[in-house]
Amino acid sequence: MADHEIEMVTREEVMFFDTDCGGVVHNLAYLRMIETCRTRLAAKLGMDLREMSVSRVFPVLTRTEVDYRRPAKLGDWLEIRGKLGEVGSARFWCEFEIRREPDGELMVTAKQALALVKMPEGKPVRLNFKV
Amino acid sequence: MADHEIEMVTREEVMFFDTDCGGVVHNLAYLRMIETCRTRLAAKLGMDLREMSVSRVFPVLTRTEVDYRRPAKLGDWLEIRGKLGEVGSARFWCEFEIRREPDGELMVTAKQALALVKMPEGKPVRLNFKV
Amino acid sequence: MADHEIEMVTREEVMFFDTDCGGVVHNLAYLRMIETCRTRLAAKLGMDLREMSVSRVFPVLTRTEVDYRRPAKLGDWLEIRGKLGEVGSARFWCEFEIRREPDGELMVTAKQALALVKMPEGKPVRLNFKV
Amino acid sequence: MADHEIEMVTREEVMFFDTDCGGVVHNLAYLRMIETCRTRLAAKLGMDLREMSVSRVFPVLTRTEVDYRRPAKLGDWLEIRGKLGEVGSARFWCEFEIRREPDGELMVTAKQALALVKMPEGKPVRLNFKV
Repeated sequence: MADHEIEMVTREEVMFFDTDCGGVVHNLAYLRMIETCRTRLAAKLGMDLREMSVSRVFPVLTRTEVDYRRPAKLGDWLEIRGKLGEVGSARFWCEFEIRREPDGELMVTAKQALALVKMPEGKPVRLNFKV
Repeated sequence: MADHEIEMVTREEVMFFDTDCGGVVHNLAYLRMIETCRTRLAAKLGMDLREMSVSRVFPVLTRTEVDYRRPAKLGDWLEIRGKLGEVGSARFWCEFEIRREPDGELMVTAKQALALVKMPEGKPVRLNFKV
Repeated sequence: MADHEIEMVTREEVMFFDTDCGGVVHNLAYLRMIETCRTRLAAKLGMDLREMSVSRVFPVLTRTEVDYRRPAKLGDWLEIRGKLGEVGSARFWCEFEIRREPDGELMVTAKQALALVKMPEGKPVRLNFKV
Repeated sequence: MADHEIEMVTREEVMFFDTDCGGVVHNLAYLRMIETCRTRLAAKLGMDLREMSVSRVFPVLTRTEVDYRRPAKLGDWLEIRGKLGEVGSARFWCEFEIRREPDGELMVTAKQALALVKMPEGKPVRLNFKV
């Protein structure tokens, strides 16, 4: 149910380093913004950055699907909304929408699959978070 | 037919800035490597960087699908192989494989859809390259 | 006088993309954080991002000096404090300190000189902001 | 003497991800190019990337000074020339020039000081390479 969804919302102002000479935000910049949102979503699910850094068990991307719908520009404020999607035994999905503020225009949608992995060996760890 | 395929191969050595504290290459770095390959593939198809910079008609990403299969590490040499996939009237696909050298291990596969767009207006331009 | 200083403070949580396989924040990431602080400092001085995007008069870096003092790590919260330094007729300096929270440890100091330039011609524009 | 200098030359074609909406190369991109050159210069001095990854003794930047002289553009080919400068007991300097090809125009000059450090503890290691 909607009211049980695990969500995270982050906001970013488009900086020069986010843009390219086409005059709009570069495709890699949206994925960096999504990573910030995803990392905070993961923290909400019990995967804390500092703990990971010690345990060396990290959520590792296994797949990204991203649709670039409308171009954002220098100085735009973007809202990145991430939520937990389907959860399997070995990997889980996160879903993202990036909207421009304040008009709510949808700029980018994305889905990412992640696995928990012991690094740097790359050994998968069984998922055990409750959702 | 395979011998008519339009291909581009680029090579990259994994640098510190490509890696993260998980000890392996960060997901954004592979997409940067793919962009270099894709840009040179586009040049082969008649889309020259300097001309684009003047005409302001750019190939713009509309979708990326990427599967992260095995993690590359600092100092690895990677071969990025891109080829033109399906071509429609409004957009075309490029397909990529990243393999580690010299063992040929497959690290990453990706597909990207692009449209030709007049920037910064974002107006689509009809595809007219012959393949 | 100190109470007349034009300052900007931004905060960043160290993400995976900020780190490298040495286990600490990569040198480029601090400069990206500094750029965000600098851009907001510039906005405070009347150089608004959206206006720049139209006028195409941008503050352009002419020199950076940066000292890396202590390494920040994944999950650290960093405070970036920027202030306007010396102002000449053709360029102005900004000064930055990056401190770890909550202990206030000094991680990075930097100075940057900027000129106002009409892009993409690269023509210098006379400084006219009052400080 | 000049003929004893330890040098490294790398070449880069300016890609979209190197540029920003000012229409020119972003300041961070030059430092990424310099890092590639510096890493290969370090390899020439006996600091191999794969060995570092195991020994976890890395050359760590302690200071960067960079002057941005002329803006490079999309599709420009740049030559990055790095050489070993002054060497002390605790740190060594590298010096860089970035020139546009084929006209040799000087775009960027930089100096960087590095120390050898055992990571992630951050413990300095005495320099022992012969030059």
